[in-house]
Amino acid sequence: MDTSAAVGADEIRVRVRRLNLDAASFRQLWTKHGGDGAAVRAEVLEIVGRRGKMHNPVTGSGGMLLGVVEEVGPQSRLGLVAGDEVATLVSLTLTPLVIEDALRDWDGCSEQVPCDGYAILFGRSVAAKLPGDLAPELALAVFDVCGAPALTARVVADCLARRPGRAPSVAVVGGAGKSGALSLVAARAAGAARTVGVVPVESERTLLAEAGLADEVALADARDPVALARAVTAALGGPADVTVVCVDVPGCEHGAILATADGGTVVFFSMATSFAAAALGAEGLAADVSMLVGNGFVPGHAEQALGLLRSDKGVRSLFEARLRAD
Amino acid sequence: MDTSAAVGADEIRVRVRRLNLDAASFRQLWTKHGGDGAAVRAEVLEIVGRRGKMHNPVTGSGGMLLGVVEEVGPQSRLGLVAGDEVATLVSLTLTPLVIEDALRDWDGCSEQVPCDGYAILFGRSVAAKLPGDLAPELALAVFDVCGAPALTARVVADCLARRPGRAPSVAVVGGAGKSGALSLVAARAAGAARTVGVVPVESERTLLAEAGLADEVALADARDPVALARAVTAALGGPADVTVVCVDVPGCEHGAILATADGGTVVFFSMATSFAAAALGAEGLAADVSMLVGNGFVPGHAEQALGLLRSDKGVRSLFEARLRAD
Repeated sequence: MDTSAAVGADEIRVRVRRLNLDAASFRQLWTKHGGDGAAVRAEVLEIVGRRGKMHNPVTGSGGMLLGVVEEVGPQSRLGLVAGDEVATLVSLTLTPLVIEDALRDWDGCSEQVPCDGYAILFGRSVAAKLPGDLAPELALAVFDVCGAPALTARVVADCLARRPGRAPSVAVVGGAGKSGALSLVAARAAGAARTVGVVPVESERTLLAEAGLADEVALADARDPVALARAVTAALGGPADVTVVCVDVPGCEHGAILATADGGTVVFFSMATSFAAAALGAEGLAADVSMLVGNGFVPGHAEQALGLLRSDKGVRSLFEARLRAD
Repeated sequence: MDTSAAVGADEIRVRVRRLNLDAASFRQLWTKHGGDGAAVRAEVLEIVGRRGKMHNPVTGSGGMLLGVVEEVGPQSRLGLVAGDEVATLVSLTLTPLVIEDALRDWDGCSEQVPCDGYAILFGRSVAAKLPGDLAPELALAVFDVCGAPALTARVVADCLARRPGRAPSVAVVGGAGKSGALSLVAARAAGAARTVGVVPVESERTLLAEAGLADEVALADARDPVALARAVTAALGGPADVTVVCVDVPGCEHGAILATADGGTVVFFSMATSFAAAALGAEGLAADVSMLVGNGFVPGHAEQALGLLRSDKGVRSLFEARLRAD
């Protein structure tokens, strides 16, 4: 990748302040190095140095970044000027990046990476100005997952358009995570009849129940197809019309398909999703479900997600608790 | 996998006559062994012996089989009786299989594998009786890809339902292949305004043009995003409302996304599709497209595909030519 600091006619150079690694990417690095933060940091530096971008070769995923606009090409249409504090909403896997401080202020133990360096945004890149009323870390965490609630809301609205008066039930697998929590709130706001958040452990059940984001909270291992389908069916009184997969562990495809009603929709947001497992699983189970690849871009997604965070105290407190825990 | 020959209450045992390997799976084996048929055969035997099913560990895909019903469990609801000639429409990756003739009649040089052995179908399996008016090899080849035309037709119908009077344009990448050819015919039958089949080489352009399955035939390397988008846009007078990816080579995700109009739909049928490349590609390109995982099961798909083959001489002759070439 071309990592020259010069900006083209429709490009923007951003002085990078912080990277937010994709959860699946950070988990892979963390697991590979047995929790050795220095080794995680060394590998991130190695990847960015070699590829010219933060593109985890194992997970295929990147993340996003926060910074200050340094220079704007004369034909840029992103609506930004030098000095704007921005977050990129385009994946780091497509963003030329140069790290200049060797990540010396990062301990390698969290997804949020203090960083000094620069990145180049293109004409089709998407970047959002940071809101004045929210901490940058909080806004960044919201932007990182804002595609999930936006697409969930769209799918729920499509269901309502197809079958007026028959609001869909929605299951969110990984409902206590950041993308899952926002997706639950988005589903409810879009008119879902009933929602369930599925979580893997008791502590997450408590967290999600206290936040009040779902009508039901169910405990199940999403990698166990029968267990997941049973948990969803018990919570909703039947399979879900819409199942949203937000957990970043492999092997949730069959369970999500089994948990979904005939004619329903599964939305896969996890970067750990296997295309073949989803396609062949549905075929093998003779399951008539639509399966969507979770597109992280939906017009207006950033503003929509910030709006959900501002209007729902539960999801905001859950995000703040997750940021403190990082 | 349990490969016992005994049938459970809702199971069926089939005497296998022929396997039809998934195209991506066969290509991977063929390439790995440099076109050495004996080595391809040995690896298929090794995979089935070890895993109890034909499940290519690299591509994650399988294929389907043709045989004769041997024994039907008392509670089976598949509507089959002993002696029925059937093809399974469930992936081989989920079908217990025992090969008993060491594939001695197969030269390892084609996807169609003469075989003696048995397979077990479950309650949720899907199997179709072979039609009396078509050669078994032809019916098998149709069944193998029948999910693609069925889902393509559904997506085109959904477009028409959402925007009455504004029929969608459809691009099929890999339009001269079996799934691609049927998808083109299905799109036209479902009411597409205009169709283009994209092929990689001149010989396929001739084949597809002579079959008359598409309004336009375009030549492009689907792995080159800009070339693919340009070819589709030139042929249709703009990006496609629906893009269907039927080529079994990796790296077509970004091109398919770029070739698709904002608000449009991409359907990925290739097992070589990378979930992360699709999800992050759309996000990185800020492309507001819906992306569907090609589910090989749509109710009625087998009958629908046979109907297309019977009613369209072009697609039938293309299938027959492909079978002769195998």
